[in-house]
Amino acid sequence: MWGGRFAEGPSAIMREINASIPFDKALWQQDIAASKAHVAMLAAQGIVSATDAETIAGGLDRVAQEYADNGVPEDWDLEDIHMTTESRLAELIGPAAGRLHTARSRNDQVATDFRLWVRQAIDQAEAGLVALQRALVTRAEEHAASIMPGFTHLQTAQPVTLGHHLMAYYEMIRRDRSRFADARVRMNECPLGSAALAGTGFPIDREATAKALGFDRPTGNSLDAVSDRDFALDYLQAAAQTSLHLSRLAEEMILWASQPFGFVKMPDTLSTGSSIMPQKKNPDAAELVRGHSGRIVGCLTALTVTMKGLPLAYSKDMQDDKPPVFEAAGLLALSIAAMTGMVADSTFVTARMRQAAELGYATATDLADWLVRQADIPFREAHHITGAAVKLAESKGVALEALTMEELQAIDSRIDERVYAALSVESSVAARASYGGTAPEQVQRQVSAARKLLGMEG
Amino acid sequence: MWGGRFAEGPSAIMREINASIPFDKALWQQDIAASKAHVAMLAAQGIVSATDAETIAGGLDRVAQEYADNGVPEDWDLEDIHMTTESRLAELIGPAAGRLHTARSRNDQVATDFRLWVRQAIDQAEAGLVALQRALVTRAEEHAASIMPGFTHLQTAQPVTLGHHLMAYYEMIRRDRSRFADARVRMNECPLGSAALAGTGFPIDREATAKALGFDRPTGNSLDAVSDRDFALDYLQAAAQTSLHLSRLAEEMILWASQPFGFVKMPDTLSTGSSIMPQKKNPDAAELVRGHSGRIVGCLTALTVTMKGLPLAYSKDMQDDKPPVFEAAGLLALSIAAMTGMVADSTFVTARMRQAAELGYATATDLADWLVRQADIPFREAHHITGAAVKLAESKGVALEALTMEELQAIDSRIDERVYAALSVESSVAARASYGGTAPEQVQRQVSAARKLLGMEG
Amino acid sequence: MWGGRFAEGPSAIMREINASIPFDKALWQQDIAASKAHVAMLAAQGIVSATDAETIAGGLDRVAQEYADNGVPEDWDLEDIHMTTESRLAELIGPAAGRLHTARSRNDQVATDFRLWVRQAIDQAEAGLVALQRALVTRAEEHAASIMPGFTHLQTAQPVTLGHHLMAYYEMIRRDRSRFADARVRMNECPLGSAALAGTGFPIDREATAKALGFDRPTGNSLDAVSDRDFALDYLQAAAQTSLHLSRLAEEMILWASQPFGFVKMPDTLSTGSSIMPQKKNPDAAELVRGHSGRIVGCLTALTVTMKGLPLAYSKDMQDDKPPVFEAAGLLALSIAAMTGMVADSTFVTARMRQAAELGYATATDLADWLVRQADIPFREAHHITGAAVKLAESKGVALEALTMEELQAIDSRIDERVYAALSVESSVAARASYGGTAPEQVQRQVSAARKLLGMEG
Amino acid sequence: MWGGRFAEGPSAIMREINASIPFDKALWQQDIAASKAHVAMLAAQGIVSATDAETIAGGLDRVAQEYADNGVPEDWDLEDIHMTTESRLAELIGPAAGRLHTARSRNDQVATDFRLWVRQAIDQAEAGLVALQRALVTRAEEHAASIMPGFTHLQTAQPVTLGHHLMAYYEMIRRDRSRFADARVRMNECPLGSAALAGTGFPIDREATAKALGFDRPTGNSLDAVSDRDFALDYLQAAAQTSLHLSRLAEEMILWASQPFGFVKMPDTLSTGSSIMPQKKNPDAAELVRGHSGRIVGCLTALTVTMKGLPLAYSKDMQDDKPPVFEAAGLLALSIAAMTGMVADSTFVTARMRQAAELGYATATDLADWLVRQADIPFREAHHITGAAVKLAESKGVALEALTMEELQAIDSRIDERVYAALSVESSVAARASYGGTAPEQVQRQVSAARKLLGMEG
Repeated sequence: MWGGRFAEGPSAIMREINASIPFDKALWQQDIAASKAHVAMLAAQGIVSATDAETIAGGLDRVAQEYADNGVPEDWDLEDIHMTTESRLAELIGPAAGRLHTARSRNDQVATDFRLWVRQAIDQAEAGLVALQRALVTRAEEHAASIMPGFTHLQTAQPVTLGHHLMAYYEMIRRDRSRFADARVRMNECPLGSAALAGTGFPIDREATAKALGFDRPTGNSLDAVSDRDFALDYLQAAAQTSLHLSRLAEEMILWASQPFGFVKMPDTLSTGSSIMPQKKNPDAAELVRGHSGRIVGCLTALTVTMKGLPLAYSKDMQDDKPPVFEAAGLLALSIAAMTGMVADSTFVTARMRQAAELGYATATDLADWLVRQADIPFREAHHITGAAVKLAESKGVALEALTMEELQAIDSRIDERVYAALSVESSVAARASYGGTAPEQVQRQVSAARKLLGMEG
Repeated sequence: MWGGRFAEGPSAIMREINASIPFDKALWQQDIAASKAHVAMLAAQGIVSATDAETIAGGLDRVAQEYADNGVPEDWDLEDIHMTTESRLAELIGPAAGRLHTARSRNDQVATDFRLWVRQAIDQAEAGLVALQRALVTRAEEHAASIMPGFTHLQTAQPVTLGHHLMAYYEMIRRDRSRFADARVRMNECPLGSAALAGTGFPIDREATAKALGFDRPTGNSLDAVSDRDFALDYLQAAAQTSLHLSRLAEEMILWASQPFGFVKMPDTLSTGSSIMPQKKNPDAAELVRGHSGRIVGCLTALTVTMKGLPLAYSKDMQDDKPPVFEAAGLLALSIAAMTGMVADSTFVTARMRQAAELGYATATDLADWLVRQADIPFREAHHITGAAVKLAESKGVALEALTMEELQAIDSRIDERVYAALSVESSVAARASYGGTAPEQVQRQVSAARKLLGMEG
Repeated sequence: MWGGRFAEGPSAIMREINASIPFDKALWQQDIAASKAHVAMLAAQGIVSATDAETIAGGLDRVAQEYADNGVPEDWDLEDIHMTTESRLAELIGPAAGRLHTARSRNDQVATDFRLWVRQAIDQAEAGLVALQRALVTRAEEHAASIMPGFTHLQTAQPVTLGHHLMAYYEMIRRDRSRFADARVRMNECPLGSAALAGTGFPIDREATAKALGFDRPTGNSLDAVSDRDFALDYLQAAAQTSLHLSRLAEEMILWASQPFGFVKMPDTLSTGSSIMPQKKNPDAAELVRGHSGRIVGCLTALTVTMKGLPLAYSKDMQDDKPPVFEAAGLLALSIAAMTGMVADSTFVTARMRQAAELGYATATDLADWLVRQADIPFREAHHITGAAVKLAESKGVALEALTMEELQAIDSRIDERVYAALSVESSVAARASYGGTAPEQVQRQVSAARKLLGMEG
Repeated sequence: MWGGRFAEGPSAIMREINASIPFDKALWQQDIAASKAHVAMLAAQGIVSATDAETIAGGLDRVAQEYADNGVPEDWDLEDIHMTTESRLAELIGPAAGRLHTARSRNDQVATDFRLWVRQAIDQAEAGLVALQRALVTRAEEHAASIMPGFTHLQTAQPVTLGHHLMAYYEMIRRDRSRFADARVRMNECPLGSAALAGTGFPIDREATAKALGFDRPTGNSLDAVSDRDFALDYLQAAAQTSLHLSRLAEEMILWASQPFGFVKMPDTLSTGSSIMPQKKNPDAAELVRGHSGRIVGCLTALTVTMKGLPLAYSKDMQDDKPPVFEAAGLLALSIAAMTGMVADSTFVTARMRQAAELGYATATDLADWLVRQADIPFREAHHITGAAVKLAESKGVALEALTMEELQAIDSRIDERVYAALSVESSVAARASYGGTAPEQVQRQVSAARKLLGMEG
């Protein structure tokens, strides 16, 4: 393959460690598209004849058809998708195939193919995340006024609305989408024409190939263009953060589905049973989403470590860029889809949620706030008074609102009958109407704004 | 501290594991600023009186002055910077201090403080990276036509210009800056007013505090706002990618300074000697930059793992957000500054670089390209012919251009005398004038564009 | 410092990035001990005079006393603990100090010091883990027969005993201890005498220094000895696995302390309150232990990345070995101590646990097993029959044992009255008496074996 | 599959995310073996009849034969290798197949299968590492006296022998082997019989199945046994450390093969050419080994993150244990084999190495040591004198030994003619005969000891 410069061919171990075709065959569509753009440009610039260009383009179409019909053959001797395609092209159209590789190298070719692939993965993530947001918004609207305990430290903190809780995930996904969008803008420059590392002496038109492949512009430095895998890292970082958010939602679904919580019933369609315990209905999908976050983080670590300390320009280590990205993209797509289903189809047991909200002295803050507002007591002092009331209620085993006025006034004489109105969970959530707060009216505002952004109106 | 709700105080181990003041005291300026914005808003909204607000603001200024003069005291019983400041405020101004915590919680307070800190770290990274880019551009212009061997796989590949090589790093840093800029836009929303998790019943004005602290707007969901550390992860991801780029430049400086290369002499100011080997001049700064990339990646991993699977809202795990960010920011600032010095002050041994470029058959591609252009041979065939010429030259132990016309024509009769002009390193680099290529004119174009963007004109 | 070989001293940025004294001063005791062992050997071998050796040893003792009294001074110009100590020694005893560095280098010196430090950290981990095991065993014995729901997928699976559950952590810690023990054996070879990288021409006695410092033998290859940080990685890997186990226990304590579970009341001494919500008692210590696992994993990643791809022998990157190890050791020690306190002092709410065990059809497997045993039905068929019984009970909203004999026989006629005995949680746990199973007698066996191994007898 | 407890089957996304058969089919041999051991024990204990047991064992053999002949079918509805096998067994032998799952669960079944697989992967790593050590020792013996420059900070430090350098890797691999051996001992306990989580009420004999499968004993706690993936983490940690060592050797091979070094010619069988540059011979195998270290570290991170914070007992997240282990094992085996080939078949260009050793003032330490020994000067002073000599030689552009006696004595009058003998690279390496040092005699000692340990005698 390399011009008789080698006395011996590769050893068996070399053929195996070197071959990327088992995974980079996933790039076949990108490889064909980039080759077609390249040869069209070569012809437009007079670097190859129009006839040759036509023959090559036709041949590439035939190869593509073969791949679509029968898959990409895996011949380790042909190493990668580039050689596999070029070799098949030569079989189909003869020596003209040899002109396709003019003014390019596998170094810029693979950088171009892989960018195209990652760009598409970004677009797929974006579509999946929009669907997830829609599911969140729909359920949030439905439950804008459903009351549940809000937790901090997993301790009952204050009553919140389920809609508010779901909209928190809407916000996380909003940031995730912006991260993918930023990555897309940053990566959308075309490396093709950087050749091996130094550019080429042929009079190529890099603007033309960039445009043909949907890039905003050609990359500005050929050495950088063939050595750069930032676009893959940007993708993996965005994927890792998304997967962290999904892992948090999954954790909550698992908690909520657990018998002691009983806040949610997951759909049968996303649950499994047990081979030994006939009563089980397990939240496997949520657990797998949580588990997948580990693997996606592993993929990010992998490419990060691989790129560390590599000198310019292309090094073969960079062939290890694709498996982590392919793996992460697959896991992420499944995770987003599974969570979308879970959000859309789970049954929230609102009675149980509400009941739990009434336990745990969740409205203690409301008592403290009432003292500040009604009796003009500094918050720190009000906090202290409320702590005493909670202690008393706890020792009696009753809720705050079950303390008598006498008992309350014994703690602080400034308390009066009006306080009871502040201690219900409904008045607690309704009161928290500050911007972004948990009050149903605020949730509805958040939901409305989100529906508009997501084009869910009408 | 928590209102008599607790029968016993914390154990010794609890005081130690719980205290964040040893590190979060770094937030004191942000904490004071956010408290001042908060109390001003409380007064404007009539939630506290103008007198109390004035007293509190004055007290905060006095605390700030004490911190500036004597540092922040570390009392584990006061846990964190928030309690430390509030406690000192109470000593200075009495019970009015207790009104400062109205309508906020430590949960939104720390989220606000930490965002302010990270935003500043982004601005510092940006400033450092601009300085590094300027150093790169200055040296690139100086060496736009200095010839060196370009490597792929660390094997001599094609001659390139040193200016071109340095501009590859300019491109990487350009992306790094855009990553920090994206992170800054995404994070610039103010969590203050989210209170513990659910918002507040006090009639606060979140737009006002957001604006006072330089944020674009308040965060949209209070549960998310106190649970979110995306901004810190965004920062760490951008820092990690920057450090990967620096690790690559550091690797090259170390290689180039090694005796077998001898491409660069690092400045004495950034080198050290050996305690045992008197002749040594070690590129310690470059090695530390390369090593620091490991630690910065470790910081990213740390926060990523910490956030995995946490339910909403705030969990104490999130207190472990600050040490990795503080550590990474320190290491990154040092790394950027050290590389800037190295780029600015190193002596490139251009004679040695050029000599190396002439070895290793670096212009073999030029021979192949010549065959394509002059003899209209498909590239693959030209590649094969050139391989044979390299093999012959290697067996004779001479350079390609030292082969006689007779020898070359014995390999392929279509070769003629004009070929020798293509085989010099000067003509090789001059030829690669495609956009982004290594030709001196192209490098000069890249440099000019960069100078303009960096405001280096005139 | 390096013999006039340098025209200029280090720049400000170099002094800062290069100085390790801010952290490696933690090695002062190890550095003094190793120097004393070294100089004693030099004297025994006649490489320095007995008088010089005595002067040096005395001087080192004085330096050590100063450090103990006043701390180690941080002078960046002296770079590290080695130069700081040697410099102070020279001030105290004059030129004889210059003989201490004969036949060694900072490369083997720091490798020795750091190994000694890590060895001690291993011994501290071992001591802490033994204490944690004792707490686990004590509580397990107390609760050998306390019934709680066993979960898989966080769904109620089968009744288990709390003692059994706690002993699961005993097993994890047992493996952790064996991992530290293995690491200790592997690392216990002395690098001192490897000098810069190649060994030394002085007639040193490496066995003597190895023995004096408690090592099993000297390292076998000097190039490896100064380039190796396996011992630090081994430590970090063992720490990471331990922290994963602690994160799981912490997760469970947090879950169990949550109101919907209510299985445990954590001690006030390991809890905190809220600055805003007066009723809160937060499991901060457990959350911090869970969070610290992220940072310890980050430390492991840091050193792993730093070591990747370094050529031999010593590179300055390796100075970045200490901060992650120091940080991890501190976090691990706190985490172990906090979990020990939590295990020892928490109150398990056994009534609530037992009540939860009776919900969720936890004894369904017992019904299936009964069918296999009594009616000789293949397990898969028994599983199916039981599933039908659970479905019926669920639709009626009752427990399995509340189904009438008529109802059960309608499902499968082979069921008879004896089945009810199998359906109580007591009989369920008592039945699972296979080796390592949850039956109280089995738990007691595990506990007894553990008590013996831990020396808790009598 | 789960007994009519479910109203609906899994959705498409659930089938896809849940199915582990695409990867866990790799466990088929382990699954068959464990099932055979289990059923034999069930028969021996009288839990199933001898006839049923025989039928089941025979059926399992038939399934195994089918898998061996045609591969394992991938039916997502059957989820995993366990259900796939059991389902096929039922087709082959009828209802008796339903008795196989008595007294076990998929939870203990997969834990057992996977341990068996990992144990085998350890044994394979051990075999590969022994082969690599033999290659290192063979080449080290060949080059026990070949002189090359030893580097620290990649700067020429002192002359060393190539044999010594290669034996440094022997030592690293020795530690790697001990790490795998430790992991093997620690993991070699059998989880089978732990059932779902709590053990079983059937009178099983766990010692018997443990012994039949080559385990040292059954695990001691059933909850731990089904929740534990330490054995997989231990494997990944050992693999990660091994891959770090290989990455260092790979880095050196790449450096040494680079034209400026020219220390090694890699075998054609482990090199590749370039699609564009006909002269290239690229060290792809070494680069891939270096790159693979990133991916193996990623695998370790993946499982570490996945396991963080999981409550007991089994959670479905743990299904994500296998892909990282399978991937790491494949990459590690290839990496070890590739490095073995590279060490065995590379040509070391000893003339070039020796020439490089003579540059860079590599024997400056020898001059300093000579001064200490001959003139009884403290080392620090000798270091300073030598620094001056190096500076003079450098300014004259000559080697140390080319300085005249006059010049040397002008620097320090205590220098005399005997010094020249110390300045040759041969005398330098010969002098460093301390234990583990670089002197050829020491290398030969190391080699001899290693040959004995590796059974390479005779």
